[in-house]
Amino acid sequence: MAEPFLAVDWGTTNRRVYRIEDGQVVNAESDSCGISAVSDFPAEVANIRGRMGDLPMLLAGMVGSKNGWRETQYVSVPAGIPELSANLLRIDDRTSIVPGLSCLAGQRPDVMRGEEVQLLGAAVAGLIPQDALLAQPGTHCKWARIANSAVVAFTTSMTGELFALLGKQSLLAEQLTGPVTQSEAFLEGVREGQRRDLAASLFGIRAAKMLGVRDDSESASYASGLLIGSDVCVRMEGNRASPVYVLANPDLGALYLAAIAENGGEAQLLDSHTAFAAGIIAIWEACS
Amino acid sequence: MAEPFLAVDWGTTNRRVYRIEDGQVVNAESDSCGISAVSDFPAEVANIRGRMGDLPMLLAGMVGSKNGWRETQYVSVPAGIPELSANLLRIDDRTSIVPGLSCLAGQRPDVMRGEEVQLLGAAVAGLIPQDALLAQPGTHCKWARIANSAVVAFTTSMTGELFALLGKQSLLAEQLTGPVTQSEAFLEGVREGQRRDLAASLFGIRAAKMLGVRDDSESASYASGLLIGSDVCVRMEGNRASPVYVLANPDLGALYLAAIAENGGEAQLLDSHTAFAAGIIAIWEACS
Repeated sequence: MAEPFLAVDWGTTNRRVYRIEDGQVVNAESDSCGISAVSDFPAEVANIRGRMGDLPMLLAGMVGSKNGWRETQYVSVPAGIPELSANLLRIDDRTSIVPGLSCLAGQRPDVMRGEEVQLLGAAVAGLIPQDALLAQPGTHCKWARIANSAVVAFTTSMTGELFALLGKQSLLAEQLTGPVTQSEAFLEGVREGQRRDLAASLFGIRAAKMLGVRDDSESASYASGLLIGSDVCVRMEGNRASPVYVLANPDLGALYLAAIAENGGEAQLLDSHTAFAAGIIAIWEACS
Repeated sequence: MAEPFLAVDWGTTNRRVYRIEDGQVVNAESDSCGISAVSDFPAEVANIRGRMGDLPMLLAGMVGSKNGWRETQYVSVPAGIPELSANLLRIDDRTSIVPGLSCLAGQRPDVMRGEEVQLLGAAVAGLIPQDALLAQPGTHCKWARIANSAVVAFTTSMTGELFALLGKQSLLAEQLTGPVTQSEAFLEGVREGQRRDLAASLFGIRAAKMLGVRDDSESASYASGLLIGSDVCVRMEGNRASPVYVLANPDLGALYLAAIAENGGEAQLLDSHTAFAAGIIAIWEACS
């Protein structure tokens, strides 16, 4: 087997480091030292090696963005493990960054950084069939079509960011302070999302308060259902026959599963850490 | 003819006062004393009478909201001049506030306050046919179906507010600082809006920057086209046969006219001050 190495899933706000030996994760740590909290990357990388082992290192995620350590290219889809391995950005002879992916599906440009490792990891680990639709909910939800162990197309939706923005300072802010639960109000929002009329559906949340037609403690759930549902509805078009594989924590994952079911689809939750480890090991082995 | 009176179109940030004699505007003033800048409404109203004449007064707009002087009811559609006149909120024997409208079109609740005077004014002044679709662009764009001089249905879209929110603090904020012009980029955004996939189309603005596929000075125009276009596209469904009447200033109005044309419709700009005056005079005469 390949020599031991350290893998880092380095995002904007969080970071996860894995020590991998003989194709297995033997140690892992998570912290909130995302790239926005780091200014001296060489020093950070030396610290990681001090804690986790003085080994070669493979980095992925926003660490390869303009605001990260060094900017990697975007490899255009279709792309699998071989295309990522062939386009690593070598910082030095034992430190590399995985490139991102780009896509021009239907004339709409799209990019990702970091998610590609999980997506392809799910494929190489055999967690999904040959041809599958995957979703990675979050601030910017990624939806990817994987075929024959390559990402062939993907779409990013600003769902999570819109929810956060609306809750922070919009007309709706005071209504969105409550918890989001997988309630009937959430499903009502999902159904409203099927109208594909987001800017008007959002104002409906305000009007419902003015007219007293919904208990305002349910507005956050309804708004979340509306935003997630709007996204799910478009992505499920022509995709109801086979399950969607959702890479997410159980709470957020459950909301997506409910929204997908409400749109007549089926979904299955996958563990994103397992998928990341499988993906980064495959990249490592492909270039060792 | 009815006795002279003062009419006030009193919104959140702006205010317009008209002195009306014999069914004609004889004096008008505009300022930025919207309700958010006013705490003592009786004193403000006394000031207006001091400047414009010690006359009876008819107020409309957000002055009748919870954050205004006194909260008026919402009269449910269909509603015309008679329904508004019959439901004035009387502050004292020579001061009244016009109620708002509510609607439960397709199970989505909606409300308006102030726009109803312009909408019905356009009808009573003969600026529109018996049956017409009207649009009032702005922070919250109103679309109303008028038939036989009554508002029969309406939809509010948070178009303008979303554009402002995204420009203030989203991932896209740094890209949206440029001017919005009726350019090819604007029309490209309008066409993207036809996909009815707003949260994904918005991320495409970021991706276009990352991939260098659009000059970033055009991003604000594109984003405006996308938001306006998403709204126009839904509202034009089944409405392409007859023109849309747009109550707006010439700059914003021109963007809506372009978006409506790009969606295969026809539109005509109306003057909102003329429409307001006609509407408020009709309400005044109906209850005199």
